[in-house]
Formats: sequence, structure tokens, C-alpha cells
Amino acid sequence: MSTLTTLPDAIARDLADFTIEVPSWGYGNSGTRFKVFATPGTPRDPYEKIADAAQTNAFTGAAPRVSLHYPWDRVEDFGALADYAREQGMSIGMINSNTFQDDAYKFGSLTHGDAAVRRQAIDHHLECLEVMRATGSKELKIWLADGTNYAGQDSIRARQDRLAESLQEVYAGLEADERMVLEYKFFEPAFYHTDVPDWGTSLLHCLALGEQAMVVLDTGHHAPGTNIEFIVAQLLRQGRLGAFDFNSRNYADDDLIVGAADPFQLVRILFEIVQQGAHRPESGVNFMLDQCHNLESKIQGQIRSVVTVQEALAKALLVDLEALADAQARNDVLEANGILMDAFWTDVRPALAAFREERGLPADPFAAFRASGYEEKVSTERVGGDQMGWGA
Amino acid sequence: MSTLTTLPDAIARDLADFTIEVPSWGYGNSGTRFKVFATPGTPRDPYEKIADAAQTNAFTGAAPRVSLHYPWDRVEDFGALADYAREQGMSIGMINSNTFQDDAYKFGSLTHGDAAVRRQAIDHHLECLEVMRATGSKELKIWLADGTNYAGQDSIRARQDRLAESLQEVYAGLEADERMVLEYKFFEPAFYHTDVPDWGTSLLHCLALGEQAMVVLDTGHHAPGTNIEFIVAQLLRQGRLGAFDFNSRNYADDDLIVGAADPFQLVRILFEIVQQGAHRPESGVNFMLDQCHNLESKIQGQIRSVVTVQEALAKALLVDLEALADAQARNDVLEANGILMDAFWTDVRPALAAFREERGLPADPFAAFRASGYEEKVSTERVGGDQMGWGA
Amino acid sequence: MSTLTTLPDAIARDLADFTIEVPSWGYGNSGTRFKVFATPGTPRDPYEKIADAAQTNAFTGAAPRVSLHYPWDRVEDFGALADYAREQGMSIGMINSNTFQDDAYKFGSLTHGDAAVRRQAIDHHLECLEVMRATGSKELKIWLADGTNYAGQDSIRARQDRLAESLQEVYAGLEADERMVLEYKFFEPAFYHTDVPDWGTSLLHCLALGEQAMVVLDTGHHAPGTNIEFIVAQLLRQGRLGAFDFNSRNYADDDLIVGAADPFQLVRILFEIVQQGAHRPESGVNFMLDQCHNLESKIQGQIRSVVTVQEALAKALLVDLEALADAQARNDVLEANGILMDAFWTDVRPALAAFREERGLPADPFAAFRASGYEEKVSTERVGGDQMGWGA
Amino acid sequence: MSTLTTLPDAIARDLADFTIEVPSWGYGNSGTRFKVFATPGTPRDPYEKIADAAQTNAFTGAAPRVSLHYPWDRVEDFGALADYAREQGMSIGMINSNTFQDDAYKFGSLTHGDAAVRRQAIDHHLECLEVMRATGSKELKIWLADGTNYAGQDSIRARQDRLAESLQEVYAGLEADERMVLEYKFFEPAFYHTDVPDWGTSLLHCLALGEQAMVVLDTGHHAPGTNIEFIVAQLLRQGRLGAFDFNSRNYADDDLIVGAADPFQLVRILFEIVQQGAHRPESGVNFMLDQCHNLESKIQGQIRSVVTVQEALAKALLVDLEALADAQARNDVLEANGILMDAFWTDVRPALAAFREERGLPADPFAAFRASGYEEKVSTERVGGDQMGWGA
Repeated sequence: MSTLTTLPDAIARDLADFTIEVPSWGYGNSGTRFKVFATPGTPRDPYEKIADAAQTNAFTGAAPRVSLHYPWDRVEDFGALADYAREQGMSIGMINSNTFQDDAYKFGSLTHGDAAVRRQAIDHHLECLEVMRATGSKELKIWLADGTNYAGQDSIRARQDRLAESLQEVYAGLEADERMVLEYKFFEPAFYHTDVPDWGTSLLHCLALGEQAMVVLDTGHHAPGTNIEFIVAQLLRQGRLGAFDFNSRNYADDDLIVGAADPFQLVRILFEIVQQGAHRPESGVNFMLDQCHNLESKIQGQIRSVVTVQEALAKALLVDLEALADAQARNDVLEANGILMDAFWTDVRPALAAFREERGLPADPFAAFRASGYEEKVSTERVGGDQMGWGA
Repeated sequence: MSTLTTLPDAIARDLADFTIEVPSWGYGNSGTRFKVFATPGTPRDPYEKIADAAQTNAFTGAAPRVSLHYPWDRVEDFGALADYAREQGMSIGMINSNTFQDDAYKFGSLTHGDAAVRRQAIDHHLECLEVMRATGSKELKIWLADGTNYAGQDSIRARQDRLAESLQEVYAGLEADERMVLEYKFFEPAFYHTDVPDWGTSLLHCLALGEQAMVVLDTGHHAPGTNIEFIVAQLLRQGRLGAFDFNSRNYADDDLIVGAADPFQLVRILFEIVQQGAHRPESGVNFMLDQCHNLESKIQGQIRSVVTVQEALAKALLVDLEALADAQARNDVLEANGILMDAFWTDVRPALAAFREERGLPADPFAAFRASGYEEKVSTERVGGDQMGWGA
Repeated sequence: MSTLTTLPDAIARDLADFTIEVPSWGYGNSGTRFKVFATPGTPRDPYEKIADAAQTNAFTGAAPRVSLHYPWDRVEDFGALADYAREQGMSIGMINSNTFQDDAYKFGSLTHGDAAVRRQAIDHHLECLEVMRATGSKELKIWLADGTNYAGQDSIRARQDRLAESLQEVYAGLEADERMVLEYKFFEPAFYHTDVPDWGTSLLHCLALGEQAMVVLDTGHHAPGTNIEFIVAQLLRQGRLGAFDFNSRNYADDDLIVGAADPFQLVRILFEIVQQGAHRPESGVNFMLDQCHNLESKIQGQIRSVVTVQEALAKALLVDLEALADAQARNDVLEANGILMDAFWTDVRPALAAFREERGLPADPFAAFRASGYEEKVSTERVGGDQMGWGA
Repeated sequence: MSTLTTLPDAIARDLADFTIEVPSWGYGNSGTRFKVFATPGTPRDPYEKIADAAQTNAFTGAAPRVSLHYPWDRVEDFGALADYAREQGMSIGMINSNTFQDDAYKFGSLTHGDAAVRRQAIDHHLECLEVMRATGSKELKIWLADGTNYAGQDSIRARQDRLAESLQEVYAGLEADERMVLEYKFFEPAFYHTDVPDWGTSLLHCLALGEQAMVVLDTGHHAPGTNIEFIVAQLLRQGRLGAFDFNSRNYADDDLIVGAADPFQLVRILFEIVQQGAHRPESGVNFMLDQCHNLESKIQGQIRSVVTVQEALAKALLVDLEALADAQARNDVLEANGILMDAFWTDVRPALAAFREERGLPADPFAAFRASGYEEKVSTERVGGDQMGWGA
């Protein structure tokens, strides 16, 4: 199956329906604790971020939603921001709360020992619900930086109890058609213990909350060696995979562009997703990019990533499931593995180029964007003001 | 609190009530895939293993139960074996099933794609229940080696479904006063995916089964960097920590003696246990050693380990909880951490020596055993026959 | 460059010259400390291993040498064994010493505190030199299992000094046209410290010995997250990469078939090799498979692996070095990375099929071997006797 | 040996001679890429940093040198700064270069593909030499953030060659009584490859440069599971351990206070140091703290750390070397390990308190500093101005 010039119809339909949400913060500057390097043309307000995000969608046709981070993306009039997005062909996706940058949150937010700080953090989330309603978003995404740096610093158990209580209050604020997704992360910024460090913890809180609470899996948020596709399969089996964050990592939460570190892992993950039909919109899994571009061009990085995910999805969809089941039933290890590898090694790029052209999109979105002059244009225009990064 | 010559009464009571189960296989030969080195005096049958285990108890007074591994410890008459144990001052603890050494289990046991193999594995577990009844044991311990070595080799999802079904059949065989504990392990012997790789998976199966199913946490079975005390706290919070396996690791599942790799971790873990009262017998958590002695003397290694756990427990019990709560409430990070460290650095050995002497035990169980001549005696007596190791 | 039906001439020449050594032990049974599963048809003596190895070469045309492990592969007459190999179209490659299975080596071999044990280990290596001369081999490969399991068990420093001295004696036994390659490994079977744990240690010993001592890099022998291609580049820069062992790992030294875990890593490694011309025979780097087949068919696993390495090498050779250098000079991160990815995603299988057919080889060696009936034949013939595994 | 109220004379002498350098940046604000939390009283210029560092020395009597980071600690008149330090009882230790925050260094510094950037980085190092001469420092400390984020971004090999050349120019600037120490780090801020990622690479560059170049080992800069004491022993064996940075980590380069994560590791490391006499001033190893205080009080954290290192050193010195050598020679694994553990578990705090009081120092430096009112005083006084952090 080495040369694929046209996508089979069923695969083309799946790909046509598959969309990826992009993060507003992916278009701002980012870096490490050592240095954040600036780039000419970086957005100076949420409107410019959305304009850039819209480029990703314009060239790929597959990234029609943009997540906001609040208060990073605070504007006077969120309705106007959503209108602007719509004019650019985008809608507002998830609203990401932020309880890690206010000085009050030094020792925690929803888990803090002081009820007043928890109150502030809960209220912040309720405010995010208002942003959702003002922008047409239906999902609140919670990633907590909460944790401790030293053994004994605080009670692990008490913090779980406080977290459960705080989440309950936020959850109670949801409308019936809204949902909350809870992200877990192995470590950072907390360096001894993290309050939601793994999928098990996130899932337990979601189960306690109710059916509108779902788990978010972020590729980069695991211990070394973790088999991520297993977790995907497990969460889908429980009906609780709410969102999936694409990115890649070689070391920790490196936030590199998806597929850069281990593209075979990406295909394996998508293969678990495909086997449970979770790539289809009706599954309710929100797929998004959550990655940074410390050194590389941001919009280019986003476009490259959308293309990479599409290629990986096509490969996952190409796996011959019937032959696979047959080889598995015979415990023919190498044949079964070979069927997966055959799909992996198939070059789907020509077929995807054709797929795009049929839909009036550039065959090579990355090259087309580079040739478009957009980056040069905004570099010239966006002079003065403060470039946006990881700050309000 | 640097010199502790006598244990405070409350701590002494807790320590007096705290017991540790020992593994029959810890007294047999073990090693790596490269080589299993034999040692003179190694037991040649389950009776000799129990005799050795009884030494651990005789010198420490704290290890009155021995786990069996079935069929490694198969004997004609399990009642007679239990009688023998009682004569040695021991009782039979958990019965460990073994579904990883029969040729049938090459590609799985409770998860196998072939119903006949699953049947065999289920029946094996039902047979273990009979061994429990014959020996007075009340707990079935399940660690599954099931998993795959290559992506695509089998369906991750289908294996979860089969596992759930198989466990259901085993669980249905339990009497009301019996329970099943399900162990998880990050990897090995499976090298691509493991069917019960983490606490979340084990807990989900236990929750689906019912209240007699509990999770087993084995120290060595985690990804690098995992905060194990967090998991302990979480499982206790769910009321589902069934058993805890002591050992230590620098790399993978090294099965070194407890406290050898990171003794502070051991104290941190016990501190989480102590804070939720789970060290007390009424908590129902079964604490056991699950470690190997590839190079060192086996009985000495077991005795050293019981002593180490007792010392670590004493340290955990010494933490000034009132002062700690106060420092935590003030977010005084270094004072809070310092309170834990103060207990950690306190030398509890003199107090434990006194504690033992009061109870008619040797002040230094390790030295006393070495001086007892037991090892020399069995080395002379146990000549001929096949030394036991990881085999039936 | 998505469809490649013919290899460019320069690449074809490189591939035609590129050969891979196979391990005799790869054709015997292997497993974990939990179980070694047997397979019908497994060789019962070194002759049968060579016969199987010859199949790998017959179907791929690229695996003309077989490494021996001594004393696993001890025969009465090594000259006769080498003759047999030649009749099968094979020659004898590296001779691997084994100082980890004799009871004397429980606490070390070349590093042991007892001079008599060191003597035994040194003499074993000198005996390996004789095997080399009897078989026409020119390389002695040393992997040491030496290390300790517990802090304090032995002196780390003293063991380095003894190692240096022991290696000196072995090195002194080399003829001018022979060489010694020294392998490092992160851990296992030693679980606290390993005497040659990293490339730095191996290289220091080689530098102290002289120009006939070189480092062996085994893919599976590194800490989690290690950038292996960096080490390859560094050792080549020092002119000290003696041999490279292909395999793959998800966790520890899993010894899975090459390319199974992270095929992009394999291409990145080969790309570093290609850039320094080290894939060419004149570089003196001995490329070999060093992997086990615990669950899968052994000969099939070996053939699949040779094919995978060839495909990866072709991809590495396809990288447009001129365009890459240009993008690198402009710090165009995504373009530079994209040039590498373009080669990676190119499906080279049709071109390699054509390449093989031109040379009278089967287009698909894996399928051809499966269809050949060889496995069925040896399964029928090889009845009785003891199947070989990791033992003498 | 459980209660130690007085240090043996030889140990007291060693401890009296043992000093620890402190980092100026440890007194400024630090944090993660997510947030740097400010603390009242944080220094606003290098003078205030030195004043705070002097507190660490005043209360412990063991921290008489302070490292500077250039240009973070740039002042008009470095001679005046050194004078000020002397008035505070301190001298200036190592000068740390900084080639990771200027925009020019986005893609590298000493390794950059553009000769002009390399020139800038080399000149920066030559400027550091001038700072050394102006302050009386004799050591230039180089940690490079250089590396890449994506495969293909730049040539690993070419960067090594450029690095070697650049270092040569810097090295050529050293006077005979000066030296350069080169630090390695596993990853961060580079997320694909790092140009000096491991001790082997650092050592190779030092060997190429000459005898005034030495390796720096930073505890936090290793792959998960790395046996750091082995590297210490190896570098001492080569006579190339130039400096050792204390801190601790649970995950990555967490920069927690020394001994917080695994205090047994700290003692094992110091035990290797002690066995080669490297704790003595004449060894030339510069021991320093290199840690951050994201959440905890900075000066308190520094004082706690000095005390922790002293305690760990005392434990390492307490190991009964004669008994150890004897047990090792008999391969009595548990006795040998037990001898080390005995020293580890000995509570040395009373003896260290007595040691300090004899020298006119507070028995408990941490408590004494907290009671001194210094923090309250500077919090009141240091109002206005910009608090210093990781920036010039």
C-alpha cells in the first residue's frame, strides 16, 4: 500500500469531518524560565491572535475553533471578540481558566488551605463560565498548577478534599449543554507533588462530579515511558475522554510541535482513537493543539501541526482492521504488527494534497502560507505595543 | 528530638500491632534473565520456605504471616502445610496466583483472545480460592503478567473487556469474608503495553467488581519519578488500598530490599499511611515484603527489611502533626518540611531496641540471627534435592 | 519526494555495501526472569543457529556475518563451525565473551575484588581470542554484567581501577589486526551501580588502552530520554565508534526488534551515521542486530529487522543535505526539520523492492521467507535434544 | 553509633575546613515559565544580594564565597563590589557567564552557526575574565544553554566543532592560576539536543583544552535514574572534577534545596567524595549551592542547605572504612551496606550543634536566623526599586 494518491472515500469523509482546535496562546511568544525570545509580528492583543489563528484555518480548512485563555485573552467585549472570530471564519472553542499567575495562588488555587483563596479561584472559574456564554463556547477547560515543592509543605489528602469541594461549586455552575474538562499533568510548576498528576486522579474527580465532567489528556503530561495510547483506550472505554491535546516531548512538558518527537506514537494514539470511533465529531472528544513555538515561526508551526495530525489520522484510518483482527486471533505477532507498520509507512501526502485541492485548499498548506506574505505583512504592521505571551 | 531511647506509648502500641507479611518466594533463589545464582541452604520445598520465614518472625516478632505463590508452593496437603506454619508460629497470608509460567499463557491469561486460555486462567484462580480455604487464607492476590510486546499485537481495548469479564468470574467465587487484591505494574514482562499498568486501571476494575476487590500498590511498579505517596493517599481516600508491597528500586522493578534505594521515600509513604490511620490492623491494608535477594543472604535480607520498615514507621509516627498543621496553615514551607525532616533524621534505633527487649525479642534482630547459626545449620542439612526458585 | 520507485545510484551503491551482523543468540529462545517460552524448531546447537542465521542472509542478501557468544556457542572444533558457516554463505563476526553466568562471577568478573576471579575472567577473554583465530573473527566484544546491587557493597573506584588493569591484560593479547570493543549499559543485571554504565566510561577505558579499543553503542542501554544520535555523533567525532547494536526499547533493555519502538529515532541515528560516512564499510563500524524474540518468530524477526534497517538507512541517505545546510544557515527551524521529515515520510519500500529484485533477491524478504516452508521444515526435523537459549 | 554528641577530632577538622560557595542568584526571585512569585525584601542590586549571602555565612560559618552571574550582577565598579563583599566577610567566588538571554543567542552562543554570534559569546567570556580579575575570582564557570529543539534544526557534529574552537579562544585567555569549569546538563532550555548534555562531552572538551579546564557536576542535570555518585567517582579518578553543584530534584532540573528529594543520595555522593579526599580544600573541588527558592524563604533555604550538606558530610565521614573494606572483601553484601546505613542513620545534629557552639556559631543556624529579625528588617527597608531575578 506504498503509494496512496487518493484517499478512499470513507477515509476522506472522516478527514473532512475532523477538526482541530488551536490555542490563542500558541500565537503569542513563549519560552522557558531562562528566556522568552520575541518574534516580529507577534500579536499584541487577542484580536491579532485570532487573526493569526484564522490563517491556520484558512490554509488547512481544518482548524475552525480557537481556545481562549482567561485572563490572558481578556477583552472589554467578549461578544465583539466572538463576532470578530466569526468574521475570520473561526468560532471560540474552550475557555481555559488560569489560576497560576495571580500572586494569591502561590500555594494553590482550588486546593489552597485558605478558604478565601479557594473562593477567588472558584469565582474565577464562574467568571470563565460567563466568558463562555459571551463567546458561544460550551467547554470550560481546567488545568491546575496546584501542588507543592517539598514533602510536608501541605497535606496531600486535605488538598484532594478541598479540590473536590471547589470543583463541585464550579460544576454546579454549568448549564446542561456545557461541560468541564479537567487536565492532569505529571509535574511542573509543582516539583514535589501535583494535585492532579495523572489520569486516575482526574477521572475520580470527574466521576464524583457527574456526566458533564470529562478528562483531558495532554500528550506531554506523563511520566517517562508512559504508554499514552493505553490511557486513551481506557478513557474512551469509560466514556470520559473529553479532550486531547496534541504536542510532543522528548524530555518533560517540552511543548514541541506534534509529531516532532515520536511520530509513530502519534499514529498509535490515533489508531486507538479510530478503533473506538472517537475521531468523529459525535464522539464529543475535542482535539486541539496545545504546544508552544519557542524558536520556530508560530503560524507555520501551527499549520505544520494540523497537517501532521491529518497525515497521522489518515495512516491510522488506513490500517486494515480485518486483516489485523485475523492476525491477532492467530497470535501472529509480526504479521499483526506489520499490518500497523504498513499503514504507518504508507506515504499519504499525495492523497492528502489531492484531498485538499478537491476542497479548494492549497495542496501544501505550509508552503502556501510561507508564500502568502502574511508574516512579512504583520511584521511590518504590528509595530509598537506589547507583544503577547504568557501573561494577561 | 535527636536521641530517642524510648518510644512514646502511643507509638509503641502502634508498632506492637503492626505486622508485615513475608513472601515464600523471598526465601528461594531469584535473579535476572542473565543468571540465577544459587545459595547453600536454600529451601527445597514449601515447608523449608516456611521454616525460613518463621526465622524472620522469630527474630523480629513482626512477621507472622507468609504469602504463598501457587503453583510454586503446591503441596499435596495444604492443610498440613498450614498446620506446619502454625507450629512455626506463622499463619498463611495471601495466596498469589500465577498465570505467567504455563506455556498456555504466552500471549495472556485472563485477557487472552482465546476463551479456552481464559477459562484455564479463571479456573486457576478458582483453584487458588480452594488453596485459601485449605490454608485459612482470606485473600487472593492477582498480579497479571499480561500485555503485549508490539503495537498491533493485540487489541488494548478488547483485552480490557476480556479482563473485566474474567475477573467477574473469579470475583463471583469469593465468600463474603474473602477478598481479591489486584496489583498493577508499569511494565515487564510485557514490553509494549501491560493490561494493568497503573493504579487507575486496577481501581477501575475493582470498582466494577465490588467492595471485596481492592488495589495492591507495589513500590517498584511505577514509572520513573512517580510520587508514590500521592497514590497511597489517593487510594486510601477511596477506601481501596488493599495491600502494599515493600521493596525498593533504582531503575525498574529491581526488587531490592525495602529502604535500600531511597529511605526517605519509604518514610514519606508511611507518613501518608499514618495520617489516614492505615497502619493499624483495622484498616485492612495488608503490608508485605515483596522483594528478591539476588546477591544477599535471603533470611538476613528479610529480617533487615522488617527492621527497616519498623524504623520508618516509627519515624512517620514521630512527626509532630499539630506543629505541622500549624506551619502548613501559615504556608511556612521550610518549617513544615523541617518538621517532617526532624522526624526523619531522628535516630529511632535505640528506642526500637528497647521496645524489642521489653517484648523478649533481640535488640538487634539482624545481628542476633547472624549469630544464631541457623544459616550454617541449614546449609549443612539441606543437601541434595532441587533448590526452589521462581518455578513450580 | 513521496513516491520512490527506484533508488538513486549513489544510494543504491551505499545500500549494496551495507551489511548487518546477526547474533547467534537471536535464533535461540529468550525471555524474561519470569519465563522463557520455547518455540518449535529452535536450534539445539550452534550449527543449527548458523543455519537459521544463514536464512536471514539468504533472503535479505545483507546479513553475511554471525556473532558468536562464548561459551554459549562452544563446539569441539571452531574451525569446522567456521567452515560450516562459509558453506552457508556466512562468516563468523564478533566473538562475545560471557562473564556473567559462571558462579564465580556472582560479584563481578574483570572488576572482582578477588584476583583469582579476575584471573579467570581475563583468561576467559584470552580464550575468546583463540576462538577468534580459529573462526577467522577479528573482533572481541565485551559486555560486562559487573556492578553492585547495594550502596556500599563494593568500592566503585577500586572496581574501576581493577577493570582498567584487567582490560590491559586482555588488550595486550590482541594482534595488530584485531580489536576489542567495549559495550556500556545503563543497568541490569546490576541494580545499584554498573561498572561500565555509559559511553563516557567505556570511552575512557578505550582511550587508556589504545587505538584497537573502541566503544560499542547498544540502542537499548541508555537512561530514559537519552539522545542517542548525539552520542553516535560524538563517538564518531572521536573516531571511537566500534560497533552499533540495533534493537528497540520502550522501557528498559527490552530487546525488541529494531524500529518497533520509535522508528524515527532509528532514522535520526542513521542520519548522524550517514553524515559522517560511517555507514560505509571503510568506517570500520560494525553494525549488528542485538535483540531477542521472546514472543515472535525468531528468523522472521531477524529478517524484518534487516529490512527495517535498510529502509531507515535509505531514508537517511535521501535527506537533501544541501537544502538542509542552507536552511540551517538561515536558522529556518521548520524548513530544516521539514527536510529531514520529508525523507522520513518518503515510502522507500517500492524502491528497495526493485533494488532487491535487481540483485536476484526476493522483493519482500519477510513474505518470501514465510512462504518458503523453512520454519515448518525445521519444526518437524528438530525434535529431541535441548533447545538453545541463554546458556551454554 | 546512634547518638553522636561530639564529632571525632578528625571529622571536626574536616568539617572546619569545608566550605560551600553560595550563588548570588539564589537570593533573587526565581520561578518557572508559568510565574515568578516575588517576596518582600528581595534584593534589588548585587550589593543587597551579597548582604543576604553574608547572612548565610554569618549564621553557618561555612559559606564564605559568593558566585556572581554576569551580566546579572553587573555593577559599575566590580572592585568596589568585591570590597563590599570583604567587609561582609565574603569573597567573590566563581564568575558565571551568561549566553542565554541576549537575543543574539536564540539559536546558540559558542556553538552558533554564525561566526559573529560566536565572536560575541567568546568576547562575553573574555569580559568575564576581566570581572574575575576585578573581583579576585579565579574561576570562570560556563554553563551553555546551547542546543536545538528539533531534529535537523542544526548539525550536532558541526556544533561540537564550533564549540571546541570557541572554548579554545576562551581558554587561551586564562592566566596560569585561573581555571575554567564546564557544566553539562541533560536538557532545558533545549528540548531536542543539548550541546553539552553529559559528563562525557564536558570531559572531552576539557581534555582537549588542557589542565586548567575541569568538569562541573550539577546534581539536577542528569537523566532519570542516573547514578550520580558513580560519575563523581569517575571524574575524581580522572582528576577532573572542578566543581560540584548541590541542589535536588524529583523530576527534572527542579532546583530544590539540597537533600530535599533524596537525602540518602546526597550522603552517597559525599561518601564517594570523602573516599577520594575531595572534600578537603587542597582537592580543588569547588562545592557550591546552585538551587532556587521559588516558594520558600531564600536566605532560610540557603542556611538550611548549608546545614544539610554539613550533616551529610559528617555522616559520610562517619563510615567505618576499615570495617567496610573487610565486609566488601568477604562479599558480605548486607554487612557492607549496613555499615554505610549505620552512618546514614546516625543522628549527627547534636554533635554539629556542639561543633558550632565551640566556634561561636549558633547551634541551630536556621532557627537563629529566623529569630534574628533580618528578614523583617530588609522587608521594611527594601521598598521601591526592581527586585532582582533571572535578568540583568
